[in-house]
Amino acid sequence: ARQGLPEIVYGPGKRVSEIAGIVTALLGRNTGPVLVTRVEPGTAGEVRALVAGGAYDPDARLLVWRPARPVEHTVAVVTAGTADGPVAAEAAAVASALGLRTVVVRDVGVAGLHRVLAAADDLRAADSVIVVAGMEGALASVVGGLVETPVIAVPTSTGYGAALEGVTALLAMLTSCAAGLTVVNIDSGFGAALAAYRLTRRTCR
Amino acid sequence: ARQGLPEIVYGPGKRVSEIAGIVTALLGRNTGPVLVTRVEPGTAGEVRALVAGGAYDPDARLLVWRPARPVEHTVAVVTAGTADGPVAAEAAAVASALGLRTVVVRDVGVAGLHRVLAAADDLRAADSVIVVAGMEGALASVVGGLVETPVIAVPTSTGYGAALEGVTALLAMLTSCAAGLTVVNIDSGFGAALAAYRLTRRTCR
Amino acid sequence: ARQGLPEIVYGPGKRVSEIAGIVTALLGRNTGPVLVTRVEPGTAGEVRALVAGGAYDPDARLLVWRPARPVEHTVAVVTAGTADGPVAAEAAAVASALGLRTVVVRDVGVAGLHRVLAAADDLRAADSVIVVAGMEGALASVVGGLVETPVIAVPTSTGYGAALEGVTALLAMLTSCAAGLTVVNIDSGFGAALAAYRLTRRTCR
Amino acid sequence: ARQGLPEIVYGPGKRVSEIAGIVTALLGRNTGPVLVTRVEPGTAGEVRALVAGGAYDPDARLLVWRPARPVEHTVAVVTAGTADGPVAAEAAAVASALGLRTVVVRDVGVAGLHRVLAAADDLRAADSVIVVAGMEGALASVVGGLVETPVIAVPTSTGYGAALEGVTALLAMLTSCAAGLTVVNIDSGFGAALAAYRLTRRTCR
Amino acid sequence: ARQGLPEIVYGPGKRVSEIAGIVTALLGRNTGPVLVTRVEPGTAGEVRALVAGGAYDPDARLLVWRPARPVEHTVAVVTAGTADGPVAAEAAAVASALGLRTVVVRDVGVAGLHRVLAAADDLRAADSVIVVAGMEGALASVVGGLVETPVIAVPTSTGYGAALEGVTALLAMLTSCAAGLTVVNIDSGFGAALAAYRLTRRTCR
Amino acid sequence: ARQGLPEIVYGPGKRVSEIAGIVTALLGRNTGPVLVTRVEPGTAGEVRALVAGGAYDPDARLLVWRPARPVEHTVAVVTAGTADGPVAAEAAAVASALGLRTVVVRDVGVAGLHRVLAAADDLRAADSVIVVAGMEGALASVVGGLVETPVIAVPTSTGYGAALEGVTALLAMLTSCAAGLTVVNIDSGFGAALAAYRLTRRTCR
Amino acid sequence: ARQGLPEIVYGPGKRVSEIAGIVTALLGRNTGPVLVTRVEPGTAGEVRALVAGGAYDPDARLLVWRPARPVEHTVAVVTAGTADGPVAAEAAAVASALGLRTVVVRDVGVAGLHRVLAAADDLRAADSVIVVAGMEGALASVVGGLVETPVIAVPTSTGYGAALEGVTALLAMLTSCAAGLTVVNIDSGFGAALAAYRLTRRTCR
Amino acid sequence: ARQGLPEIVYGPGKRVSEIAGIVTALLGRNTGPVLVTRVEPGTAGEVRALVAGGAYDPDARLLVWRPARPVEHTVAVVTAGTADGPVAAEAAAVASALGLRTVVVRDVGVAGLHRVLAAADDLRAADSVIVVAGMEGALASVVGGLVETPVIAVPTSTGYGAALEGVTALLAMLTSCAAGLTVVNIDSGFGAALAAYRLTRRTCR
Ligand SMILES: Nc1ncnc2c1ncn2[C@@H]1O[C@H](COP(=O)(O)O)[C@@H](O)[C@H]1O
Ligand SMILES: Nc1ncnc2c1ncn2[C@@H]1O[C@H](COP(=O)(O)O)[C@@H](O)[C@H]1O
Ligand SMILES: Nc1ncnc2c1ncn2[C@@H]1O[C@H](COP(=O)(O)O)[C@@H](O)[C@H]1O
Ligand SMILES: Nc1ncnc2c1ncn2[C@@H]1O[C@H](COP(=O)(O)O)[C@@H](O)[C@H]1O
Ligand SMILES: [Mg+2]
Ligand SMILES: [Mg+2]
Ligand SMILES: [Mg+2]
Ligand SMILES: [Mg+2]
Ligand SMILES: [Mg+2]
Ligand SMILES: [Mg+2]
Ligand SMILES: [Mg+2]
Ligand SMILES: [Mg+2]
Repeated sequence: ARQGLPEIVYGPGKRVSEIAGIVTALLGRNTGPVLVTRVEPGTAGEVRALVAGGAYDPDARLLVWRPARPVEHTVAVVTAGTADGPVAAEAAAVASALGLRTVVVRDVGVAGLHRVLAAADDLRAADSVIVVAGMEGALASVVGGLVETPVIAVPTSTGYGAALEGVTALLAMLTSCAAGLTVVNIDSGFGAALAAYRLTRRTCR
Repeated sequence: ARQGLPEIVYGPGKRVSEIAGIVTALLGRNTGPVLVTRVEPGTAGEVRALVAGGAYDPDARLLVWRPARPVEHTVAVVTAGTADGPVAAEAAAVASALGLRTVVVRDVGVAGLHRVLAAADDLRAADSVIVVAGMEGALASVVGGLVETPVIAVPTSTGYGAALEGVTALLAMLTSCAAGLTVVNIDSGFGAALAAYRLTRRTCR
Repeated sequence: ARQGLPEIVYGPGKRVSEIAGIVTALLGRNTGPVLVTRVEPGTAGEVRALVAGGAYDPDARLLVWRPARPVEHTVAVVTAGTADGPVAAEAAAVASALGLRTVVVRDVGVAGLHRVLAAADDLRAADSVIVVAGMEGALASVVGGLVETPVIAVPTSTGYGAALEGVTALLAMLTSCAAGLTVVNIDSGFGAALAAYRLTRRTCR
Repeated sequence: ARQGLPEIVYGPGKRVSEIAGIVTALLGRNTGPVLVTRVEPGTAGEVRALVAGGAYDPDARLLVWRPARPVEHTVAVVTAGTADGPVAAEAAAVASALGLRTVVVRDVGVAGLHRVLAAADDLRAADSVIVVAGMEGALASVVGGLVETPVIAVPTSTGYGAALEGVTALLAMLTSCAAGLTVVNIDSGFGAALAAYRLTRRTCR
Repeated sequence: ARQGLPEIVYGPGKRVSEIAGIVTALLGRNTGPVLVTRVEPGTAGEVRALVAGGAYDPDARLLVWRPARPVEHTVAVVTAGTADGPVAAEAAAVASALGLRTVVVRDVGVAGLHRVLAAADDLRAADSVIVVAGMEGALASVVGGLVETPVIAVPTSTGYGAALEGVTALLAMLTSCAAGLTVVNIDSGFGAALAAYRLTRRTCR
Repeated sequence: ARQGLPEIVYGPGKRVSEIAGIVTALLGRNTGPVLVTRVEPGTAGEVRALVAGGAYDPDARLLVWRPARPVEHTVAVVTAGTADGPVAAEAAAVASALGLRTVVVRDVGVAGLHRVLAAADDLRAADSVIVVAGMEGALASVVGGLVETPVIAVPTSTGYGAALEGVTALLAMLTSCAAGLTVVNIDSGFGAALAAYRLTRRTCR
Repeated sequence: ARQGLPEIVYGPGKRVSEIAGIVTALLGRNTGPVLVTRVEPGTAGEVRALVAGGAYDPDARLLVWRPARPVEHTVAVVTAGTADGPVAAEAAAVASALGLRTVVVRDVGVAGLHRVLAAADDLRAADSVIVVAGMEGALASVVGGLVETPVIAVPTSTGYGAALEGVTALLAMLTSCAAGLTVVNIDSGFGAALAAYRLTRRTCR
Repeated sequence: ARQGLPEIVYGPGKRVSEIAGIVTALLGRNTGPVLVTRVEPGTAGEVRALVAGGAYDPDARLLVWRPARPVEHTVAVVTAGTADGPVAAEAAAVASALGLRTVVVRDVGVAGLHRVLAAADDLRAADSVIVVAGMEGALASVVGGLVETPVIAVPTSTGYGAALEGVTALLAMLTSCAAGLTVVNIDSGFGAALAAYRLTRRTCR
C-alpha cells in the first residue's frame, strides 16, 4: 500500500464484479488488510461468495479481509444520540480492522451532562477519542475539555432544518472553544478511523 | 407604546439631533421608559445635553430615560467568553431598564465544564436565562439541559474563519439537542432582553 | 427526567421494537408524560400494541403516554397558510400533552390583513403565541406587534425556489422588526411547544 | 437612448472628468434626461462646475440634467424604517427626474400595523407602489395585500446578523405570500424607479 | 377577493376534497375567476367531477373556473430553452385566465442571437414581457435592452451543477445590466402572471 | 521555469525588498519574462529602483522584465462596462508581456446589443477571446455564441447586492447556454491571460 | 450550425419523439455532426429506431449521427478516481464525435503521486488536457503544473458531506495555484469537450 | 490547567491591563507555560513591561512565559506559498512553546511538484505534519499521500474571489482523497499546534 496506509475501497457506485476484482488484486499485491466501506448486505454477500476470507459487519456496512494485528492503542468512539450510531459503527469497525482496540460509548449528548460526566473516566483512559455528533455537535467541545489526548470530531448529517445536513455540526466543531480538536468530513466514520490509525504509526512501535 | 411594549430607538445611522427629537417626542407621548441602543459615548453625551434625565451605560452603549419599576422576575445573563461581554452588557442593561432583576455570570464556556457546573445553582434560581455565546455556541445546549425555565440564546459574531461572523453559533443554537431553547438574532442583546421582558407581561402581575 | 423536562423520543430512524423498549423504560423510570414525535400511523399502531396506554394523534404524528395535568397557561398556535398545518398540529399536540391549554388559529397569512386583525383579540387573550409560517414568515412580525406576551416563531419548509426549504423564513423571523420575538428550528413544532412549556415552569405554580 | 430608455450613468468608480465627459456626450446625442446616480456632494459640485444645467439632490445622491416632462402616473414610495431612507430617496428622485409624480410614505414598518393601515388610502390612490424595506422585508407582503396595482419591492441592506446585508429581505420578498409582487436588487432605488418608469411607456400615452 | 386580486389556490399538498371544498366556497363568495395551480391530471379530473364548470390545462397544470373577461393588454411570454416550457405555460395560462392576451415566443436563448433578434418586433409590440430562462438567465438582460415596456423575469430551476436549482439565474436577473427589470421567484410562472395582471389594474380601464 | 510556464510573482503581501529579491533570483535562473502582478505605483517605483530593466503598467498594476517575443496569436479582450476596466487591463498587459497580440474592445454590455454586434467581426478575427464582465455576466454567453474560437470568461466583482462580489457572474458564466466557454477565478485577469498563453504552446510553433 | 459550432441536443426532459424530431431537423439543416447528450439506453434505442444512422455510447450516454472528420489535435482526458468515470466518458465521447483524438488516463488521484507522475509523459504529449476530478479536485492543480498546454478542469459531484455535490471541487479548481487553468460546470464532460473543440478552430487548419 | 492542557489566552479585543492581569493570575495558579496569541508588537511590549519573564515572537505574534520542557516529538510545519507564512509561524511558535521540536518547510505548493517531492524525506522523518495552505489547499492531499503519520491541515484565508476567505481550502481539505487527514479552523495555526500537542500526551512519556 502507498506509504504504509491500508488499502480501503469505497463501495458505492461499484458493481459486485468490480469490487471482487479490486479486492482480489489488492490481496495479491501486498499482505495487509483490505477493506471495502459502505457495502449493503446483499452486495456484501455476493462479493464474499466470489472472494474467500472476507468478513462483513452489517452495522458498519464494512467488508474486511485480513484484519491487522492488534496495536497498543485504544480509541474511544463516543456518540451524542441514537442517530449517530451508524457513523460510529463505521469508525469503530474500520479502526478495529486496522488493529486498534476500540471502546464505544453511546448516547451521551450534552443536554444531560451527567451522562458524559459518567463516561469521563473511560474517555480519559483511551489513547484517543473519536466524537460522533450531529445537530449542533456540542459534545465535541465538552469531550475536548475533558481529555488531553487527540480528539477527532465527526459531524453527522442527522437532524433537520438548520442542521443543514451536517454542515452546522461541521462548522461548530471547527470553531469549538475546546482547543486542539481536529475534524473530518461529515459522516466520515472511515476518515476518523484512518486519522486514529495514523496516530499509531510512529508512536506504537 | 404599541401593545404595551417599551419604546426603544435603534441608534446607528441617526444624527444627534434626530435621536434627541425622537426621544423628546416619545417622552411626551407616554409615561414608560425610553431607550436608545448602540450609542457611542460621544453621541450619548451630546444627546444627554439636549434631553434632560437620560442615563448612559458605556459598556452596554445604552441611553435610558425613565427606567421601569422593578418586576418580580430575575433573568440570568451568562456568557461563554470574554468576547461575548458587550452583547451580554446590552442584554443586561436593557433588561434592567425594563424592570427585570439581572444576574450576570461570566466566562463559563464549556471547554471547562467545572465553571458552568459551579454556576448551575445560580442559573436554576433565575426565572429565565439568556445565554450569550459565539464560536460554536455549545454553552446554550449545556445550559438548556441544566435549567427548566425559558432559555434565550444569543449567538455572537466572535471568532474567525468557520465561525462565519456568528452564523455558525446561530445555526448550532437552532439545532441544539437541548429541547425548547429559543434563539434571537446574532449579537442582539437587545432582542434577548425584550424576549425576557415579554416573559413578564402575563405572569408577573 | 433531566431537570424536570418531559421525556420526548424522536421517532424517525427507530424501529418499532426500539421505540417500544425506550418508552417502556421511560414509563418505569419516572411518573411524567412520555411522548414520541414524528411517528407514522403504521408504526404508531404497532408500538401501541406493544406498550399499553398510549394515544396517537395522526395530524401531529404524536404518540403520548400519561399526558400531564393541565397548567394555567394558554398558548395560541397561529398559522399563515394551509401548508403550515402539520407543524402547527405538532406544536399544539405536544403542548397539550404537556398540560398547556392550546388554541389554534389557522390561515391568517398577512396578504389579507383582515384575517389576522380579526384574530387579534384571541391572540392577546393567550399567555403566549406560537407563530407557524413559511415562505417569507411575515406573520411573525405582524403578530409580534399585536401582542406583548412571548412570541415563539416556527419557520416552515413550505414554498419553493427562494424559500430555500425554510431558511428564508428562518432568517426573516430572526431579523424581524417586531422586538423580542424568539425563533426555533425550521419545522420544529416540537421545539416551539417545549419553549412554551418552559414558560410555565416558574410562573404557573 | 437605447429603446427609449433614459440615459443613466452609474457614478461610483468614475472620476469627475469621466463623468463630465460622459454627461456632455449624452446631452449632445439626444434630447432626453441625463442622470448620474450615487454621486457624493463633492464630486457633484465639481461635475456641475464642468457641465452647466445640472441639479443635485444630496439625499438621493443624484445628478440630473433635463428632467423629463411629467407623465400621468403617481408612484408611491413607502419605507419600513429610518434606515431605508436613502434608498427611498434614490427611488423617488430618479422617478421624479423621469417624469413620474412621487409620493413618499415613511416609516410604516409592520411591527405597528396602525401606521401602514393609516397609509392604505394613499397607497391605493397611487398607480404603482415601490416598497423599500430591510431586515425581514415584511412590509412588502402587507402592502401587496393592500393594493391591486403593481408593487415593486426593494430590499435594503439595513440590519445586522441574520439580515445578511439585505439577502434575507431579498429572499423574503421573492417568496412573499402576496401574489404578483416583483423584486429588484438590494438597495437599488434606481432599479425600482426604472421599473416604475417602464410602467408608463405603453399605458400613459 | 381581497383587494380585487383574483382567487388562486395553491394545489400541492391539498387533497381532492379539500380543493373541491375551497373552490366551491370561493365560487360562492364572489363572481370572479377561481384558479388552482400545480394540479396533476389525475387530481384535476377528480376535482372537475366534483365542481362543475372547471377547465384544465395539462401543460400549465392549471384548473380554471370562470375565466376573466379580456382586457386590453398583451403580454409576451418568451423562453430561453426547451426546459423552460412548463413554467412559461403556467405563466401564459394564468395570465389568459385573468383576461390578458398572451403571445408565446419559444427557445430564443442568447447563444444564438439571431433568434431573439428575429423576435424583437413581437416583443416590442406587447404591452409587457415575461422572460422565462434558467441556467445563466442572460435572455432577461437582452430582452430588457430590446423593449422599453415592463419586463418580468422568471428564473427557472433548469440546468445542473452551478445552476444551483435556479438560484444562479435568480441572482443574475437581479443584477442584470438592463435597467428596470423586475424578478419573481424561481419557477413562478404564477407570480409573473399575477405581476402582469397588476399592470392592468390602473391603466386598462 | 516549471514546465515552460513563465515566472509570475503575486505582489500583494510582499515587501519591496522581498519582491526585488525574488525578481533578481528569477532573472538569474532562466532567460524568459518575469512579471509581478497587483503592484501599486509606489511599490513599483521602489522595486524598479532596485532591479534594473523593469517596466510598469499602472492600469494593469503590472511589473515586467524581459517581455516575451511575439507569437502568432491574437487575443481579444472584451469588457461589459467601465468597472471591468482594471481586470481587462491586467489580462491584456499580462498577455502582451507573454508575447500575444492583444486587442481590447470596451463597454459592449448586452443591454445595448448593437455595441457587441458592431464588435462581432473584431472578435471573430481573433484567435481567442477573453470576456471580462461583472453583474450577471451575460456578455460571455453572447460572445460565446458569436465566435467559434476559445472563450475565456473572467467574472468581476463589480456591482452590489445580489452581485455577491462576483459570485453571481462566476456562477452565471459556468452555466452559460453558450457551449464550451471556460471560466477563471473572479477578477483574475492574470488567470485569463495565462489560459490564453497556454493556447499558444502547442499550436503556434 | 451557429458560428460553426456543432449541433448538440440536451437529452433530459425530452420525449423520444421530440428528440427524433429535433435530430431529423438538424440532420436536414446542415452537414455536420448531430449529438444528443445524457440519453438513457432505452431512450437511445427508440430514437435510433426512428432516425437511421445513429450510434450510441452507453458509458457516455451519447447519441451521435455523422461524426466529424478527424482533426490534428489530441486531447488527454484524465480522472482522479473511479467515480469520475462517467463524466470522463462523456468528455471523451463528445470530443471524439467532434473529430479530436482522445487518450483516457484513469484513476491517477494525487493521494498516490506515483500514478500521476507515471502518466506525465502521456499528458505532455497531448495538445490539451481535460482533468476530471471530484472531492477536493487537487488533481487539476498537479496536472496544471505538469503540462504547459491548455488544461480544462471538470469538477464532479462525487463524494459526500463537505464535497457539497461538486461545489467544493469547482471552487478549488477556480482558485488553483497552477496558473492558467480553466474550469467548466460541475459534471459537464460535454462542456469540457466543447472547450477542447474550440481549441481546434483556429489552430488546426 | 484544565485537563493538563496548557493555558493559552486569545489576545484580540483585550486591553494591555486585561492581558497582564490574566497572565499574572495564570502564572500564579500553576507551573506550566502561559501563552497569549495574536498580539501586536506594541501591545506585546506593554504587556512585557508589566509581567516579567515574557518572550515575544513578532512573526507568530505570540507572547510566551515559561515555555515547556522539550518532548520527544518532531512536528513538520509545511506551507504552500508565501502568504501562508504567518499562520505557519503561529503554528510553529505555539508548538515550540509547548515543547515540541518543529521543522518548517516553506513554499512547496503543488504547482511545482519537485519542491514537495524534495521535501518528502523531511516530512516522513517527522512524527506529525501540519500542512498550511490556502487557495485550493491541494498540498494537504499530496502530503497526506506522502506520509503515514498524523496530518493536521490548516486552511488559510489567502487568495481572492472563489477562495472565499479560506472556506474553499477548508472544504477541499475536508474532502481530500488522502485518507485520514484532519482539519482545524481557517488560519488557526494555534489550533493545529494544540492538536499536535495532544498527540504527545499519551505516547511520549
Ligand atoms: N467511506 C469512505 N469515505 C471516504 N473515502 C473512502 C471511504 N472508503 C474508502 N475511501 C477512499 O476512497 C479511495 C478509494 O476509492 P476507489 O478507488 O473508488 O475505491 C481511497 O482513497 C480510500 O481511502
Ligand atoms: N420532533 C423533534 N425534533 C427535534 N428534536 C426532538 C424531536 N422529538 C424529540 N426530540 C429530542 O430528541 C432527543 C431524543 O432523541 P433520541 O435519543 O433519538 O430519542 C431529545 O433530546 C428530544 O428532546
Ligand atoms: N403556483 C403558486 N406559487 C406560489 N404561490 C401560489 C401559487 N398558486 C397560488 N399561490 C398563492 O398561494 C396562496 C393560497 O395558498 P393556499 O391557502 O394554500 O391555497 C395565495 O396567496 C395564492 O396567491
Ligand atoms: N450535457 C449537456 N450539458 C449542458 N448543456 C448541454 C448538454 N448537451 C447539450 N447542451 C446544450 O443545450 C443546448 C440545447 O438545449 P436544447 O434546446 O434543450 O436541446 C445547446 O446550447 C447545447 O449546447
Ligand atoms: Mg449532537
Ligand atoms: Mg462559545
Ligand atoms: Mg407565510
Ligand atoms: Mg423592514
Ligand atoms: Mg437560459
Ligand atoms: Mg456585465
Ligand atoms: Mg479527486
Ligand atoms: Mg495552496
